[in-house]
Amino acid sequence: MEKMDLKACVRSVRDFPKEGVVFRDVTTLFQNPDAFEQLMQEMVASLQGLDVDLVLGPEARGFTVASVLAYALHAGFVPVRKPGKLPAETVSYSYDLEYGSDTLEIHRDAIRPGMRVAVADDLLATGGTALAACRLAEQLGGKVVAVRFAIELEGMGGREKLRDYDVDAVMTFPGD
Amino acid sequence: MEKMDLKACVRSVRDFPKEGVVFRDVTTLFQNPDAFEQLMQEMVASLQGLDVDLVLGPEARGFTVASVLAYALHAGFVPVRKPGKLPAETVSYSYDLEYGSDTLEIHRDAIRPGMRVAVADDLLATGGTALAACRLAEQLGGKVVAVRFAIELEGMGGREKLRDYDVDAVMTFPGD
Repeated sequence: MEKMDLKACVRSVRDFPKEGVVFRDVTTLFQNPDAFEQLMQEMVASLQGLDVDLVLGPEARGFTVASVLAYALHAGFVPVRKPGKLPAETVSYSYDLEYGSDTLEIHRDAIRPGMRVAVADDLLATGGTALAACRLAEQLGGKVVAVRFAIELEGMGGREKLRDYDVDAVMTFPGD
Repeated sequence: MEKMDLKACVRSVRDFPKEGVVFRDVTTLFQNPDAFEQLMQEMVASLQGLDVDLVLGPEARGFTVASVLAYALHAGFVPVRKPGKLPAETVSYSYDLEYGSDTLEIHRDAIRPGMRVAVADDLLATGGTALAACRLAEQLGGKVVAVRFAIELEGMGGREKLRDYDVDAVMTFPGD
């Protein structure tokens, strides 16, 4: 099949979620079967040879790419969730936002020491969420072998924040 | 590969999210590569021959099964979200809960008239969420050809609420 221009499948929405922001909406790509398949196959290819045991995905949009990667790589999928959503014992990690802070959790028994973990999300901006997922994996003895995104917004500090990791994205757009 | 006992991979958590409820936690299945693959392959098999164009998944846990089904069937994935999460023009559907009501949305341009839609979620209980997803698809002229779940809780009215649709689940557990 001829390669598609994936970036052309991403919708840009001005002033969402607030004025002055251009939101890169990946749902228009996900709803296109050819584009969705190509995106996921490029992400799968970028993880070949890394022997990934588990793919972690932050809620909610990260569930999509992380679940498909886990399935395609014959790995397990582990949801990274906001507090109170996971029913069994969790570990949590809090990080600062522009205003206030946020906390993410995973199940304590989701990762065993030595497991090879990939973190996957739809979009890299400041990198706070992905870094939290990496730290959660490491708290449980996992080794983060890759951090993958569908889209990277450039100039927002995400690459720098994740500089200790193997980071890649399929598409790049200018950040705000 | 020998078949696994998928139900044995589901964790039962007592008194979550409230006292007296036994929560069926599918994350322990998702994090097991063999179990996750078998679950998804059984769900894929149940959709063969239905010519599914799009798979709709309600946030957040529904994103996992719906995304993998879409990828495996070479269909599109469409997220069904709570209000305010989708950046472009949406259609919405409100439904009653035991106390109060809930609203779900999809993008207006996610479904074109005549498209063949499957709805997929991790768990069928009362069926309110899945019915809302079906109604949203129909509002946009889609034809709901299947509604699929990883787990069905029996005796909670879900099958009855979805009686107009082709409904199937891989596993069943007694409801509350």
